Amino acid sequence: MSEDQVVRPPALRPGDTVLLVSPSGPTRPERVARGVELLTSWGLRPVLAPNAYARRGYLAGDDALRAADLNAAFADPTVRGVLCTRGGYGAQRVVDLIDMAAVRRDPKVVAGFSDITALQLALWRGARLATVHGPGAAWLDERTPAASAESLRAALMCPEPVVVPRVPEEETASVVVPGTATGRLLGGNLCLLVSSIGTPDMPDLTGAILLIEDVAEPPYKVDRMLTHLRRTGLLAGLAGVAVGQFTDCADDWAVSVADVLAERLGDLGVPVLGGLPIGHGAGQITVPLGVPATLDTAAGTLTVSPAVR
Amino acid sequence: MSEDQVVRPPALRPGDTVLLVSPSGPTRPERVARGVELLTSWGLRPVLAPNAYARRGYLAGDDALRAADLNAAFADPTVRGVLCTRGGYGAQRVVDLIDMAAVRRDPKVVAGFSDITALQLALWRGARLATVHGPGAAWLDERTPAASAESLRAALMCPEPVVVPRVPEEETASVVVPGTATGRLLGGNLCLLVSSIGTPDMPDLTGAILLIEDVAEPPYKVDRMLTHLRRTGLLAGLAGVAVGQFTDCADDWAVSVADVLAERLGDLGVPVLGGLPIGHGAGQITVPLGVPATLDTAAGTLTVSPAVR
Repeated sequence: MSEDQVVRPPALRPGDTVLLVSPSGPTRPERVARGVELLTSWGLRPVLAPNAYARRGYLAGDDALRAADLNAAFADPTVRGVLCTRGGYGAQRVVDLIDMAAVRRDPKVVAGFSDITALQLALWRGARLATVHGPGAAWLDERTPAASAESLRAALMCPEPVVVPRVPEEETASVVVPGTATGRLLGGNLCLLVSSIGTPDMPDLTGAILLIEDVAEPPYKVDRMLTHLRRTGLLAGLAGVAVGQFTDCADDWAVSVADVLAERLGDLGVPVLGGLPIGHGAGQITVPLGVPATLDTAAGTLTVSPAVR
Repeated sequence: MSEDQVVRPPALRPGDTVLLVSPSGPTRPERVARGVELLTSWGLRPVLAPNAYARRGYLAGDDALRAADLNAAFADPTVRGVLCTRGGYGAQRVVDLIDMAAVRRDPKVVAGFSDITALQLALWRGARLATVHGPGAAWLDERTPAASAESLRAALMCPEPVVVPRVPEEETASVVVPGTATGRLLGGNLCLLVSSIGTPDMPDLTGAILLIEDVAEPPYKVDRMLTHLRRTGLLAGLAGVAVGQFTDCADDWAVSVADVLAERLGDLGVPVLGGLPIGHGAGQITVPLGVPATLDTAAGTLTVSPAVR
């Protein structure tokens, strides 16, 4: 498998079975009801994994159960998509138990975000699988804007590029270093990306556009994570940075999260585009990961190749 | 400089100048008043670094100012000790600006904890300097128990071993894997240790006793940090784990921080001793870092060689 290769799973088609799996935190039937309804309305067949509602403290059941659900999904040829119900915490504890040979044998669409970044980084490392950064089944509810749901549908079912326009009202909209950059889109949740440093799952970011988003981290902790990344040298060969939502990151001693992002990303010497509606905020847009993307700060867009073929 | 060598600075003596420096978060004169009083009562001469009260958001002034204070202290032969006022955040941003040649030329006692772990890891990497894990000048106040203040005094001024007994009332007291272990004591604040992974400052933990403590981290985040460390392979050669205080780490979905520590440390195959009064709790005991130590779970003690000669 060449370093440059990316494995795009087949796009989901009406009639396809999508397994709802919980590799991280616990959820409840009522939380996934709207997600099931939406998937069904798109002609898909959502099926709950055996342990999707398991609970053990902050985990959706023991590591063995969560890994078994993932591996059963990857091994079953009738399952065409794996939609994680939610993030929270726990994917990192099971990624080393995944049967990557099964993933490579029969690549499937894997969607989710937040803690699921850990799973998506592992699938990139183990199978060069393009994945889908978007809301889990338990994230979708009556408040989900139509455009947000539609962007998930399109990313799962249509092999077409995704264009994400910068939103001036977003908290990070002021974080801009002008320019145009092209590279593979990698990353997701900043905290989980940083939690992969020093493990095999930390991706090679040379020539990449790094996507980052986070939730409920005070600005000084965002500073700490970016400073950590900088000190590893892993950002040295970046092509650009796509800054998503930093939701509920309250000011810290009068320093905003946008201040921190502008300072710690502003001197990397690459284009940076903030204000992208990707992450834990309202109306998040779904984007493919692992595939080529273009960041254009003049146009105010991130354009990403499809994750599916 | 051999990997095995440790550089012990001379013990502080009455009349010695101790510079109070703020490499991390901002502080105020009234916060260090009690610390100055205590140091003075021990016969030391506490002197405020030029930028000790500087402020820039959550930092004690710009990186250049904080680094300048540290480098001035390390370069000045009349300064015999460097006592950090407090932690917070920011040491990680300046450690690469430290003049390590100056530190090696004239080794001094460097004391602090929490965010200062980042500084102590850097001094270990750059100068193999034994340092002192204990309260900063702004941590000491009227509520500081006499035994806690005395343990700081002894660690700074007496070249004698420190014996820390397990305290059954501590939150982590139930975290025990029986046995005896001997090795170099390394670590400090868990979050800052994890924030050094993949940087030159992550110490080689082979044969070491790892000290960890933290504050205000929910159990799932402690899990994430320990899982991160485990996945790097850096814990593979550990001799033992000394578990300090995990203060204000409220339960998470009915999982306590002691539960998490017991689970994530319990299968490492090395002795683990929890309940050590080292960290952000009341009555913290000061311990040397970088020097040989013995963990004895039957005796319920961590015994550490002096940091000073």
